[in-house]
Amino acid sequence: MTDTDLRPFDTTFVTDLARQLRVDSVRCTSEAASGHASSALSAADLAAVLLSQHLRYDFDAPELPGNDRLVFSKGHASPLYYAMLRAVGVISDEELLTYRQAGSRLEGHPTPRLPWVDVATGSLGQGLPIGVGMAIANNRLNDLQGRTWVLCGDGEMAEGSMWEAFAHAQQEGLDRLTAIVDVNRLGQRGPTRYGWDTSVYQKRLEAFGWHVVVVDGHDLNQINDAFEEVKQVSDRPSAILARTVKGKGVAAIEDQSDAHGTPVPDFDSAVSELGGQTDVQVTVAVPDVPGTRPQRSSAQVELPTFEVGAEAATRDAFGEALKALGAARSDVVVLDAEVSDSTRSRFFAEAYPDRFVQCYLAEQQMIAAAVGMAKLGWTPYAATFAAFLTRAHDFIRMAAVSDADLRLVGSHAGVAIGQDGPSQMGLEDLAMMRATCGSTVLYPCDANQAAALVASMADVSGISYLRANRNKAPVIYEPGEEFPIGGSRVLRESDNDQVTLVGAGITVHEALEAARTLADKHGINARVIDMYSVKPADVDTLRKAGLDTGLIITVEDHWPHGGLGDAVLDAVAPLERPSKVAKLAVRHMPASGTPAEQLRKAGIDAECIVAAARTMLVG
Amino acid sequence: MTDTDLRPFDTTFVTDLARQLRVDSVRCTSEAASGHASSALSAADLAAVLLSQHLRYDFDAPELPGNDRLVFSKGHASPLYYAMLRAVGVISDEELLTYRQAGSRLEGHPTPRLPWVDVATGSLGQGLPIGVGMAIANNRLNDLQGRTWVLCGDGEMAEGSMWEAFAHAQQEGLDRLTAIVDVNRLGQRGPTRYGWDTSVYQKRLEAFGWHVVVVDGHDLNQINDAFEEVKQVSDRPSAILARTVKGKGVAAIEDQSDAHGTPVPDFDSAVSELGGQTDVQVTVAVPDVPGTRPQRSSAQVELPTFEVGAEAATRDAFGEALKALGAARSDVVVLDAEVSDSTRSRFFAEAYPDRFVQCYLAEQQMIAAAVGMAKLGWTPYAATFAAFLTRAHDFIRMAAVSDADLRLVGSHAGVAIGQDGPSQMGLEDLAMMRATCGSTVLYPCDANQAAALVASMADVSGISYLRANRNKAPVIYEPGEEFPIGGSRVLRESDNDQVTLVGAGITVHEALEAARTLADKHGINARVIDMYSVKPADVDTLRKAGLDTGLIITVEDHWPHGGLGDAVLDAVAPLERPSKVAKLAVRHMPASGTPAEQLRKAGIDAECIVAAARTMLVG
Repeated sequence: MTDTDLRPFDTTFVTDLARQLRVDSVRCTSEAASGHASSALSAADLAAVLLSQHLRYDFDAPELPGNDRLVFSKGHASPLYYAMLRAVGVISDEELLTYRQAGSRLEGHPTPRLPWVDVATGSLGQGLPIGVGMAIANNRLNDLQGRTWVLCGDGEMAEGSMWEAFAHAQQEGLDRLTAIVDVNRLGQRGPTRYGWDTSVYQKRLEAFGWHVVVVDGHDLNQINDAFEEVKQVSDRPSAILARTVKGKGVAAIEDQSDAHGTPVPDFDSAVSELGGQTDVQVTVAVPDVPGTRPQRSSAQVELPTFEVGAEAATRDAFGEALKALGAARSDVVVLDAEVSDSTRSRFFAEAYPDRFVQCYLAEQQMIAAAVGMAKLGWTPYAATFAAFLTRAHDFIRMAAVSDADLRLVGSHAGVAIGQDGPSQMGLEDLAMMRATCGSTVLYPCDANQAAALVASMADVSGISYLRANRNKAPVIYEPGEEFPIGGSRVLRESDNDQVTLVGAGITVHEALEAARTLADKHGINARVIDMYSVKPADVDTLRKAGLDTGLIITVEDHWPHGGLGDAVLDAVAPLERPSKVAKLAVRHMPASGTPAEQLRKAGIDAECIVAAARTMLVG
Repeated sequence: MTDTDLRPFDTTFVTDLARQLRVDSVRCTSEAASGHASSALSAADLAAVLLSQHLRYDFDAPELPGNDRLVFSKGHASPLYYAMLRAVGVISDEELLTYRQAGSRLEGHPTPRLPWVDVATGSLGQGLPIGVGMAIANNRLNDLQGRTWVLCGDGEMAEGSMWEAFAHAQQEGLDRLTAIVDVNRLGQRGPTRYGWDTSVYQKRLEAFGWHVVVVDGHDLNQINDAFEEVKQVSDRPSAILARTVKGKGVAAIEDQSDAHGTPVPDFDSAVSELGGQTDVQVTVAVPDVPGTRPQRSSAQVELPTFEVGAEAATRDAFGEALKALGAARSDVVVLDAEVSDSTRSRFFAEAYPDRFVQCYLAEQQMIAAAVGMAKLGWTPYAATFAAFLTRAHDFIRMAAVSDADLRLVGSHAGVAIGQDGPSQMGLEDLAMMRATCGSTVLYPCDANQAAALVASMADVSGISYLRANRNKAPVIYEPGEEFPIGGSRVLRESDNDQVTLVGAGITVHEALEAARTLADKHGINARVIDMYSVKPADVDTLRKAGLDTGLIITVEDHWPHGGLGDAVLDAVAPLERPSKVAKLAVRHMPASGTPAEQLRKAGIDAECIVAAARTMLVG
């Protein structure tokens, strides 16, 4: 690609543009009486050069695959971003001044309510990791020429996730990825760790295999040269370390420790000092080639099948189903945090190595990269132990703000893993994933159900989560049965059920055995519900069961907070006469032991269910 | 300190010891038919030299402050650790062979059930960050001579948390901290990112300001020299990068990709190849000076007071109370992730800079350091935005396994922050913290209550969490009132209440206003409960209110999953006739807006509560 179509560098024009970006940043924050003026001002020169000289982006067609990507990892510099949008003419001056108002698309931190924003930022240290995913999507999975530009703050360089991203980008050789670090020296409460000592960052980034250019972030020529330089690097990612002054251009707040997160103190003098309101418009270069999105082939998925009565682990079914999905759909990509032997995502890796992304032991990076890929049209599945998904909680939280379609799988759920002990047991994953906005939470009990749900997830919007078990369990459903999301299965019922047992995953089998014992030995009829769709829950079936039987016992291999039991409570509580609900769950810190010993100790095996039901029914 | 009392280096003895550590690692994993033999074997030589030549630890008095600390960050090498315990004579051969059995102290991954284990490991990338906290506690907050030794794996070097720790340790100049990295080249599913290329780690660690020694991890002399070398470094932390062979000593599994996480394939031949079972005993050097724990002075805490009817933010009360606590108790330390201006922990920082630990934007490191300090007798409070505590979820989860007493404060809770938007809003913190084993969750609604609860937390066991609000709210309680954990306050009640409104924090004020409107305009009496103790909940008061009024409406500035509403459901559901409960909560992704607009849009302000109550009561 030649850059001959790009605008010749014109210092006067770029100076005017930078000035306007500053004025508009000041204007919108002052209008809102809120927002980070000083953090916008430090990066205005970087933004002006990038926008006018180097970015290739069709603002009239943000969905164009060939576009560059621009991520404001320092999301609090949103006023600067919105000022850029005004300068390219896609938002009006009127809209600019709606910043931070209810109903405005111009939120405190950028979100995809604006069509030019791929991902929400504002939790620092996430933009670059996501940018790595975008660069992988565009330049490795796809053959697009677009570059990924990420504007970072110096404060967020302390986040471990940044170093996961630096390592991952180097490993993938992402030479079209550039981190622009606005080293403005000041954080929220005073100096950052290294202040203006860019040499510290330079040494570290070079040790991480990046090409580094250090510039005065207010010298337009130096900045432009730096952009030119990074575009020539063809074997590694690049970082531009820009020494800047926070609040640059407004003397009253320049380099002031106490000027974080507020508008300028004196609006009129600031605008006048900056040269007044202007209407510079920029025509941004568009991509040479429009490019194409990943194709969603519509071949039938040939799911693996398991024979009823056989024993199979849901993690194995997940791995097999994922591989089958990979065969049918070329848009499916899989991410691992170096546990694919355990999660079984290696089945996919072995079949489709080109669509498998190894993030090594970096769960935050795994989720971030998945978000980046998802936003560029891929269908990512990311899997690790359920317990270790907690490592990426903030990334999952922000993925929901980004409105990303993400498929997560957590294996090794609960105490049922046995000997490995509590560090490896996912016991809070259902709570975490249910409390994710717009999420879907699935927990299959058998291999055919698991395979079907893994396939269904491909077309679910938002963040979907599947919980998988390590050990084998009986196959109880026929291959090919359907398990709609939001549904459940009544596995056992009669006309005179006295109690309803609700389980999911491993506890379905315990509940079934308990129901058999209750019937055979104690003459008690129990309804058994397989609540494989934990969120959304099958409210009607649960309410009916409560009304029919008067007592629901929920059984979950999870802490008692936020999981299956709470989902059932949520379903029946708003009724005029809610049924009694008793929750069996893991209530004490487990230790090592066999899977059977673990279930017994937690009080969630068949025998404990029988005892609980009898106590409640007979007293 | 001279080391003349340490054992002279005797290659024969150390060779025999290392051999025994290997044999015992093989024996216990084979007896358990489970566990990571190969990961223990790679580090056996490192462990033998450390244990016999350099560690200063009184195994008969693990609580001795002057002891070195030893953390197995690669917790799956637990067989090696237990073999060390047998070699020093504190566990019997019989106990060694209980590894991974139910009831054994020798769990799959080390936990503090063993008195010599400070912190649980097994979630990789956590041991070193915690070790940084220990070194800060011993060598900065205290004046102890003890060293902190952390055995790390090469796989976990991909975790961002490791790089947060490397940066933090350098910043604090922790010259008595040593990371011993067992570079055995293989992870769970194949080669690690850099295999045996120790030069990559060396470059990076040196760029992070560490002193680095590279050794052949099976050359006892090289290892010993490395330990001697790091003990001479007086201005920075040190790392020993040891190139090792996974499975070393058992030819059948040496350097084999598929020998992760299992016992050796042929027990008899492995033990015989290693030289057979022996009974080498090591006398470990003890500290020169016993040292003293941080003192818990018992001075009365002079809490800040706020006048009833005034307006104050609970975050301000937190900051003031923390400072007051700092005056009364010299064991209180405070950790920040570079937001102390917002959380108000800066009030403490300004008064007691020596007991304030700035972790910069590294929430995982903040929690890990707090865990390390807590385990060495300090009383840490760690604060950031509620939303950003999700970043450290896995560390909080593991802190519970470690049985650490930790005090967390999350400010900027909920949509009530207003304009900053969803990235900054803690809306899942209650779910996360309730689903933490043994936790206490508090959410004050006024400044005097907040101050009282902050002080109470100092003596709470386990992980306690206080949720704080950004904006001012009316003070409704007198200074000096008591708010026991597990209690609640009935703020309004009558003999004929038709509905109970349960709130906490910001929603208490909305509920009170709603109750006034319901009474004044609609003739409906509402009971109002301030549920400041979300966990444990005041079950009796909630149940009574449900029975008295028949309808409970919970109001929370949080997603509907896992928070206040679910805590109320949990309290009333096991009753024979549970009352109807309706949950008002945040159900859609918020955007920017004023605090009042946010509460309205989420349906949790006074007017929405009135409307909900009327609909449910009147229809």
